[in-house]
Amino acid sequence: NLSATRRGLPKPKMSENGVVPRAKVLTIDTMNPTVKNVEYAVRGPIVARAVELEKELSEGMKKPFAEVIKANIGDAHAMGQQPITFFRQVLALCSYPELLNDSTFPEDAKSRARRILQSCGGNSMGSYSASQGIDSVRQDVARYIERRDGGVPCDPDDIYLTTGASDGIMTMLKLLVCGEGVTRTGVMISIPQYPLYSAALAELGAVQINYYLNEEKCWSLDISELQRALDEARHHCNPRALCIINPGNPTGQVQSRECIEDVIRFAAKEGLFLMADEVYQDNVYADGCQFHSFKKVLFEMGPEYSDTVELASFHSTSKCYMGECGFRGGYMEIINMDDEVKAQLTKLVSVRLCPPVPGQALMDLVVNPPQPGEPSYDNFIKERTATLSALAEKAKLTEQILNTVHGISCNPVQGAMYSFPRIIIPEKAVKEATDKGQQPDMFYCMKMLEETGICLVPGSGFGQKDGTYHFRMTILPPRDKLQILLNKVKEFHQKFTKHYS
Amino acid sequence: NLSATRRGLPKPKMSENGVVPRAKVLTIDTMNPTVKNVEYAVRGPIVARAVELEKELSEGMKKPFAEVIKANIGDAHAMGQQPITFFRQVLALCSYPELLNDSTFPEDAKSRARRILQSCGGNSMGSYSASQGIDSVRQDVARYIERRDGGVPCDPDDIYLTTGASDGIMTMLKLLVCGEGVTRTGVMISIPQYPLYSAALAELGAVQINYYLNEEKCWSLDISELQRALDEARHHCNPRALCIINPGNPTGQVQSRECIEDVIRFAAKEGLFLMADEVYQDNVYADGCQFHSFKKVLFEMGPEYSDTVELASFHSTSKCYMGECGFRGGYMEIINMDDEVKAQLTKLVSVRLCPPVPGQALMDLVVNPPQPGEPSYDNFIKERTATLSALAEKAKLTEQILNTVHGISCNPVQGAMYSFPRIIIPEKAVKEATDKGQQPDMFYCMKMLEETGICLVPGSGFGQKDGTYHFRMTILPPRDKLQILLNKVKEFHQKFTKHYS
Repeated sequence: NLSATRRGLPKPKMSENGVVPRAKVLTIDTMNPTVKNVEYAVRGPIVARAVELEKELSEGMKKPFAEVIKANIGDAHAMGQQPITFFRQVLALCSYPELLNDSTFPEDAKSRARRILQSCGGNSMGSYSASQGIDSVRQDVARYIERRDGGVPCDPDDIYLTTGASDGIMTMLKLLVCGEGVTRTGVMISIPQYPLYSAALAELGAVQINYYLNEEKCWSLDISELQRALDEARHHCNPRALCIINPGNPTGQVQSRECIEDVIRFAAKEGLFLMADEVYQDNVYADGCQFHSFKKVLFEMGPEYSDTVELASFHSTSKCYMGECGFRGGYMEIINMDDEVKAQLTKLVSVRLCPPVPGQALMDLVVNPPQPGEPSYDNFIKERTATLSALAEKAKLTEQILNTVHGISCNPVQGAMYSFPRIIIPEKAVKEATDKGQQPDMFYCMKMLEETGICLVPGSGFGQKDGTYHFRMTILPPRDKLQILLNKVKEFHQKFTKHYS
Repeated sequence: NLSATRRGLPKPKMSENGVVPRAKVLTIDTMNPTVKNVEYAVRGPIVARAVELEKELSEGMKKPFAEVIKANIGDAHAMGQQPITFFRQVLALCSYPELLNDSTFPEDAKSRARRILQSCGGNSMGSYSASQGIDSVRQDVARYIERRDGGVPCDPDDIYLTTGASDGIMTMLKLLVCGEGVTRTGVMISIPQYPLYSAALAELGAVQINYYLNEEKCWSLDISELQRALDEARHHCNPRALCIINPGNPTGQVQSRECIEDVIRFAAKEGLFLMADEVYQDNVYADGCQFHSFKKVLFEMGPEYSDTVELASFHSTSKCYMGECGFRGGYMEIINMDDEVKAQLTKLVSVRLCPPVPGQALMDLVVNPPQPGEPSYDNFIKERTATLSALAEKAKLTEQILNTVHGISCNPVQGAMYSFPRIIIPEKAVKEATDKGQQPDMFYCMKMLEETGICLVPGSGFGQKDGTYHFRMTILPPRDKLQILLNKVKEFHQKFTKHYS
């Protein structure tokens, strides 16, 4: 037997009463080291402090603000956005089918609910679905993609429903990871990035390959920078995948068609598996910008590309105009995946049985909303348009107000739900932060939280060029509140800058 | 740069038209090897074939049966079990809060819905919750555990809501895995086991340590067998955790209080982290059997144990009397976990943002059902009792009929939702299976499926003593259908035995 000593475990110490207390089995020194490497700033220490502050406020403690405003996360309903009535009616009908006899529900909601329930075992959302997702939902997703992509065909067998997009991204990365040392899988991600990617790569022990978006050119992607990052990475790992977020998170840029073509050519030339995170596909605000799916561009580039380039693209119920994060709905489409690998993917997702069925139902409604002529159509369009126009207006407002502040510069928020302005932090503040062992932008955001109640995420949580500082702020609060919030950010920045100058 | 050759990748071949087709980035040879090692029999090839048969039947193909009966998985609603009315009313109210004005809904359902919505950001289930789960739900879980365990205290901070129990089990195992070679983490699991465990350990690259349940003593757990398995494993890995499923899956045994005490003493003595899978805690049918939670027994053994033994216990909305699998609700309680590790756990679960909120709401209703005096109480009790009594009756019926078959012997189904009878497979059938490269019980179950339409899982998917064969069959079909099904199994077994004798 291996003794504790041989395994290098600490020797148990005698306690005061002479009893030898058992050492913990699981300690920070004996836990999974890859888990320790995981970081996830969107829910990091700043959010923990925001929750504490909320509690202190509710207990009557005096603060320089009346409420904490969480602009750290793309959580639309929490910021007051209303759900789409039709979606919720169908979900209520599916939850409690007795309501199918209730004459106040519109007929189209009832027929959607009946169709979903007929696809569920025992006509109940309480049954497991197929692990890949409910068949009829995958068919609806395929038809949605075909409509969106101007008729490019989509096979329902290539669709996997997921527990939010995060689950799909994690699963795909899991398939890709292998090798050790210089053959270890490397994955290219944009900097700034959405920290799910870095967290997943850390957990899987894969190599993160950073390529930098060009802040000066509105966070656009340069192929030469992809090439630089790839060439450098090839010295120490085996780059196998390239992740793109479009529209961008946290950076809000919308990629041009040309850029997407270049990326596809690059992936083909360099033998990279493409992962396209397209969860903000309806969130495009800027004039002249348009969402192009990687799938569509790939197929329009002809068989040289569409028959060979491996692509996984991801969508979700959490963003766009619906913002239904809590339901954890999503799908991924898999193009040109090797058949044997696909069988392995299907096996892998079967272990977690199935994605949540209410989330699958909701995904179905997103890809198959009310049609012209149906009773709920007008109201659906009204609600969707109102939400998307308000977001477009708030995107512009955010950019405008932030750019009035000396020491803050903000690229246009072309899409998605965030601004990611660059901030100038005075030398003295950088020094004070560094002395405290904090990132300067964490120091800045923490001060802002304590003084104003506004919760943002420091740029260091997403990655940024050395010596630059940013924060991510959602554009989700209602217009009036957003305006107040932006002005508070302005005041804070001016005060902070003055204090440390 | 590393060339493809240096990395051992296959050289691309020239195609007929002279174009060099690109090799796939992701192939069975270049994918994550740990994923390839994963097996999950409950949704394996036999279920894939059952789905095909259903499709063939629906297309009018002639078969020796009129329908496929999936007795392979504990999917209660799919087998016709009705959801609890109160639970579904509250879910409908939470999905579509307009219904709070509907006078046909009972007041207690409305007040529960209001309480859940008040705990959601923006009063919407569409908001993300805290990653650990909604505060008020965790408080209700803690009070439920205290009631269940006769007042043993429970801290809501020790509760983590999960996406079904599988998610919690996977997360805990993930924390525990470290080391290489002889220091690699080993985890003890029962044989037969629920294959989530073997799948998770394969994916994590941990060492599976088998301890065998005693079929002759009604699948009971012998400490001497735990000791044997542990002592042997110490030669080649670092055993750190012990997993128990009680009531047992697939074996249906209910552990005695004495056995649980012995297991806890063993874990304490040997320095093992305990994982108690207690998702069938309401599914106890046999006279003289009772569910004892590991938490309660641990605390009643006094501070020598309750202050030191690390325990994670798991529960779910998917089983018991509710059977709401599709909602993917669940929780885990963590006892005596090192504070730093707990912080790492909280960070880890934050990456996947939050468990599905409808599943959290459902978990809340399970731990806080209608109370005496509330309008829904009588109907709730009536529905719950009806489901549990029917299950108890079907447990007995299953055991009785199976034991009338020569060559099948079935232990009492004391709890859970499955029988796991031993079957005698004639030598000639074993040979034919082996020649085909199949496990003999897979061969048996596949034949049964093709001839009768009954879908069972072969014992080899759960693990069994060499040379013994079993299948797992759920007791979930309605009584009449179950009786027909059991008689079909009987007929099949007799025919099969005759054919191969």
